[in-house]
Amino acid sequence: MRFGHFDDAKKEYVITNPRTPLPWINFLGTQEFFSLISNTSGGYSFYKDPLYRRISRYRYNNMPLDSGGKYFYINDGGTVWSPGWKPAQTELDSYECRHGLSYTSIRGEKKDLSCTQLSFVPLDAACEVQLLTLENTGSSEKNISLFSFVEWCLWNAHDDMNNLQRNLSIGEVEIHEGTIYHKTEYRERRNHIAFYHSSRTPEGYDTDREAFFGMYNNFHNPQTVMAGEPNNSVANGWSPVASHCNKLTIAPGETVQLVFVLGYVENPDEEKWKAPGQINTTRAEKLIEAFGTPEKAEKAYAQLCDYWDTLLSGFQLDHEDERLERMVNVWNQYQCMVTYNFGRSASFYETGIGRGLGFRDTNQDLLGFVHLIPERAKERILDVAATQMRDGSCFHQYQPLTKRGNDAIGGDFNDDPLWLIASVSAYIKETNDWSILEERVPFENNPEDTGSLFEHLTASVDHVLNNRGPHGLPLIGRADWNDCLNLNSFSTNPDESFQTADSKDGDTAESVLIAALFVYYGREYAELATRTNQAAEAERILTAVSEM
Amino acid sequence: MRFGHFDDAKKEYVITNPRTPLPWINFLGTQEFFSLISNTSGGYSFYKDPLYRRISRYRYNNMPLDSGGKYFYINDGGTVWSPGWKPAQTELDSYECRHGLSYTSIRGEKKDLSCTQLSFVPLDAACEVQLLTLENTGSSEKNISLFSFVEWCLWNAHDDMNNLQRNLSIGEVEIHEGTIYHKTEYRERRNHIAFYHSSRTPEGYDTDREAFFGMYNNFHNPQTVMAGEPNNSVANGWSPVASHCNKLTIAPGETVQLVFVLGYVENPDEEKWKAPGQINTTRAEKLIEAFGTPEKAEKAYAQLCDYWDTLLSGFQLDHEDERLERMVNVWNQYQCMVTYNFGRSASFYETGIGRGLGFRDTNQDLLGFVHLIPERAKERILDVAATQMRDGSCFHQYQPLTKRGNDAIGGDFNDDPLWLIASVSAYIKETNDWSILEERVPFENNPEDTGSLFEHLTASVDHVLNNRGPHGLPLIGRADWNDCLNLNSFSTNPDESFQTADSKDGDTAESVLIAALFVYYGREYAELATRTNQAAEAERILTAVSEM
Repeated sequence: MRFGHFDDAKKEYVITNPRTPLPWINFLGTQEFFSLISNTSGGYSFYKDPLYRRISRYRYNNMPLDSGGKYFYINDGGTVWSPGWKPAQTELDSYECRHGLSYTSIRGEKKDLSCTQLSFVPLDAACEVQLLTLENTGSSEKNISLFSFVEWCLWNAHDDMNNLQRNLSIGEVEIHEGTIYHKTEYRERRNHIAFYHSSRTPEGYDTDREAFFGMYNNFHNPQTVMAGEPNNSVANGWSPVASHCNKLTIAPGETVQLVFVLGYVENPDEEKWKAPGQINTTRAEKLIEAFGTPEKAEKAYAQLCDYWDTLLSGFQLDHEDERLERMVNVWNQYQCMVTYNFGRSASFYETGIGRGLGFRDTNQDLLGFVHLIPERAKERILDVAATQMRDGSCFHQYQPLTKRGNDAIGGDFNDDPLWLIASVSAYIKETNDWSILEERVPFENNPEDTGSLFEHLTASVDHVLNNRGPHGLPLIGRADWNDCLNLNSFSTNPDESFQTADSKDGDTAESVLIAALFVYYGREYAELATRTNQAAEAERILTAVSEM
Repeated sequence: MRFGHFDDAKKEYVITNPRTPLPWINFLGTQEFFSLISNTSGGYSFYKDPLYRRISRYRYNNMPLDSGGKYFYINDGGTVWSPGWKPAQTELDSYECRHGLSYTSIRGEKKDLSCTQLSFVPLDAACEVQLLTLENTGSSEKNISLFSFVEWCLWNAHDDMNNLQRNLSIGEVEIHEGTIYHKTEYRERRNHIAFYHSSRTPEGYDTDREAFFGMYNNFHNPQTVMAGEPNNSVANGWSPVASHCNKLTIAPGETVQLVFVLGYVENPDEEKWKAPGQINTTRAEKLIEAFGTPEKAEKAYAQLCDYWDTLLSGFQLDHEDERLERMVNVWNQYQCMVTYNFGRSASFYETGIGRGLGFRDTNQDLLGFVHLIPERAKERILDVAATQMRDGSCFHQYQPLTKRGNDAIGGDFNDDPLWLIASVSAYIKETNDWSILEERVPFENNPEDTGSLFEHLTASVDHVLNNRGPHGLPLIGRADWNDCLNLNSFSTNPDESFQTADSKDGDTAESVLIAALFVYYGREYAELATRTNQAAEAERILTAVSEM
C-alpha cells in the first residue's frame, strides 16, 4: 500500500493517506524553539529542552498512539472535521500532508471547504507560527466555527506526568483578547510564560480542559466543538489548555487566512509585572507583532525556505540516479540538521525526559552537519567540551537548557573522551579555523577552572593512557562504543534499570575497540599538535599509539 | 444532581449514573495483590508495590480522565457495549455500580441482556477474580461475542512510561488455551509472571495492542470488537495485552457465568522452566484451580464478605443518626484499612511512582487501623522501624516491595522519629502486647545491625534531644509535620522540584511543633519505660520534657 511520495521539486515528502502505519513525523525549529509534528498534527513543542521547558503536553505510548497535539477543529453546520483528519477523524473529501524542510503543511477538504494548516518555527524567534488558509470552493456562503487547541504542559515534562499533587493545583492562565497566556508558576519562581495567539479576535475561548472536552469526550469529539460554542472557561488548576473559537463567514470563492502564534517569552525579574497580578506582555506582543498577520507569516515562511536553499547549496551532487540525489542533496543533510537540533533526545520514541544530549552522540553527529553550520558546530563543541572533567572523563549526557552535564545514566564511559577529538578534528578540516583550539573552555562547567580546547583534547588522550589494564590496553569502563556493554547483566535485581546499573569498577577488563579508537584519534590529535608547533606532544602520543 | 446513594444493609455505595463528575473509585485487595477500580471499570492492578510490580498499564491524567482499565466488551449482533458504560460508551438500558468492602460489582443491561461484573481480590491469593454473570432477559436466543481486555504494564511503572527504547522491544507473552501469560523479561532476569485466564476456553484471543484496537481506534471502538472476531495475535515487543474472545449462545431466561482470573506468580529460580523456552505454569494453574469456576469464585467472595463482617464487628456504634453509624461502623474503618493497604502511595491522584510508603504517614495511619488488624499493624511497625538509622533519623519513605527506605524526596524530616513512638504506644494500648518492645529490628535495613524496638524508640527521643537549637528547642530540619516547610522556597532554579530541594542545613531554626510533639510522645515513651521497669530512662526523658 502506498501512503506517500517525494516531491523533489519542492523538497517535500507528500502523504496522501492519513492512516499511515505509524505516525510519520517532521521536526520543526532550527534554533531554540522546537516542535514535533505528525502527519495528523499530533505532537508537541518545547523551548531548548524537552525535559525542562516542555510547552505543550503530549502522552507517549498513548492509546491509540499519537493522540494529542496542536489541533484545529471546524464545525460546519454540525459537521465537525479537522484538516489533518485526526483528531476529529471525520472522513475527508481530500487530504494531503507535506513534510518540508522545517515546515509541515496539512490540507483537508470537506463539504466544499478546504483548510490548509502551515506550521513552522520562524528563524530567530521562539514561537511556532500556524498559518491557516480556508477557502470556500462551493457556491454558497459558509458559516463555520473554527476551534484551535493546545494543552499546556506544566514546564517540567517529568514532573508533569508524575506529580499530580502539584500539577492539579497550580495551573494559571491570563487572557487578553486573542491571546491566552500560560503563566503557571510565573508568580512564584519563574520568569517565563508561553502564549497562544489568534490573529483574528475570536468570539470566545476555553482554557480549562474539562470545560472544553467534557469529562467523557475525547480528542475526536470535544463537547465545545460539537456544540459550536465556546465556554470562555478560565482554568484555575487542573489542566489548563488554550482554545480560540473564531466564527467565520466565507463567501463562495473567498479565501480567509488566520495566523496563530504559539510563543515562549522570558522576562527579566525586574520586568515581570505590568501591574500587580498582571503579567508583562510586552515581549509577547513584540513576537505577535512580528508574525501575526498572514503577510508577515508568509514572509517568515519564505525566509525559512531561503535559509534551507542556502544551507543545502554548499554541498550538491549531480547524479543520474534521482534517488541518490534526493538522499544526498536533501534528506540526509536535513536529517543531520535535525540530529543537530534534537540530538536524539526527543522524538516520537525518545520521550525527551531520560537522556539530554549525549556526549558521544553529539561529537559523532557533528560529523554529519559541520559542513552545513560550522559556526554552530563550533558552539556545540565548546558546550560539550565544557562538561569534561579535568582528568579527561566526561559526563555521558548534558541538558541543552542548562548546558550542564548529567549522570542520569551514569558516567565512566571510557570511550567518550576520544570522540571529542573526532569532532574538533572534523571541524578544523571543514573550516581551517585553528583558533578553536585556543578557545577557553571550562572543565566540569566550572567557569573558575578553564583550559584551552587543546588542553581538553590532551585530557582526552591522557585519560586513555592513564586508565589501562594488564596488557597496556585501555580499560573498558562502562562502554567501548557498544551500548550493550552497559546492560545490567550483573544485577540480580530486576528493578534496576538496564541503563542505570552501577559500574563494576575494575582494573583488568580491557577494550580492543577503545584501543583502536585511540590509534585512530591519537594520530589525529598528533596531527593537530604538529600543526600547532607542539612537536614533542605529537611525538609523545604517536609513541603511545605505536606501542598500543 | 444525584449520582448515587448508600445501601446500608449491604454496606455498599451504589452509583446509578456512570457519568460521575470525576471517577468514583474503590480499592480492591487486602494483603499483597491490589487493584484500583472506578465506577466505569477504569484502573489497574499491582503486586505489593505500585512502582516495582505494576501489572496492568494505566495512564494518569489521561485525556479524557480514567481512560484505560480492565474492560469487558459485548458485541451483540453489531451492538457493542460494556457493562460499565465505558469504555464502549454505548447508552445502556440500565446501569448500576456497587462499591462494596473490597469488591466492586458493575451491572449493565442492553437489548434484553444483562451483564454483571463482580471484581475482587480473594483472601490469601495474588490475583483478582472477575465473576461475569450474563442473563438473557428477552424471549429470543442471544449469540454474542464477549471480549475481555487487560493491557500489561512492563513491571516497573516509571520505566514503563519513560524508556520506550526498552519497552517497545521486550514484550513477551505465552498462550495456553484460556490463559495468556505475560512473561516479559522472565527469560532474562525475572522470576515472576502475570497471567489472565478465562474459565471457558475461548474461541480466540489477542495479545498485541495494535492488532486488537487498530492503529486509529480507541478504547471505545476496538476494531476487533467491532468486527466480532479475534485475530489470535501474538505480541512480540510493542505493547502486549490480553484479550479473550468468548462466543456465547444464551437461551431466553438462561444465565451464563464465566470467571476471569488476573494473577501474579513467582517461581523459584530453579523452577522457572517446564521445557526450554516454556515457562513453568504449575503455580499459576494452582491459582486458577482455586478460583476458576463460578462456584469457587462465589465461595471466595463469600469468604471476603465474612472477613469484613468479622473485622467490623470489633467496633460498632449504636446511634440514632444513621449517617454517624454509617461513617463510624463501616466507611471510616474501611478507609483506614484502605490507607493501611495503599498507604497513600497509589490512588487516582497519586501515581504510585514517586512516594512509596511514608514513614510519618505510616505511623500516623496506624492509629486508625490498629484495632482492626493488630497483628498486621505489628508487622508494619517492625517494617517501618527497620528503615530507621542508628542516630534515630529516618528514611522519609520506603518501598513496600523491598521494605527498604528510599530518599526520593530527601531525608532529615526531624519530626519523623517521634511518630514511631505514637504507633508503638497505640499498638500496645490496643493489644497489651508488650513483647513488641523486645522484637529485634534492624537499623537501616541492615540485618547485621539490630536493636530491640525499644532501642529504636530511644534513638527517636535521643535524635530530638541531640538536634537542638539555641533555645534548646528541636531543630526544624526539613519539616515539623508541615509539608509546606519542604517547599523549595530558597531555590532560584525553577527546575528544581518543590519536593526534592536540598535541605538547608543549619543550627538555628527551631520548631515549636516538634517540641510539642516531644512533650507529648516523650511522656508516652516514659510511660513505656516505666512499665518495662526502666525507671531511670523514664526519669531522664521526663526531665527533658519538663525542661523543653
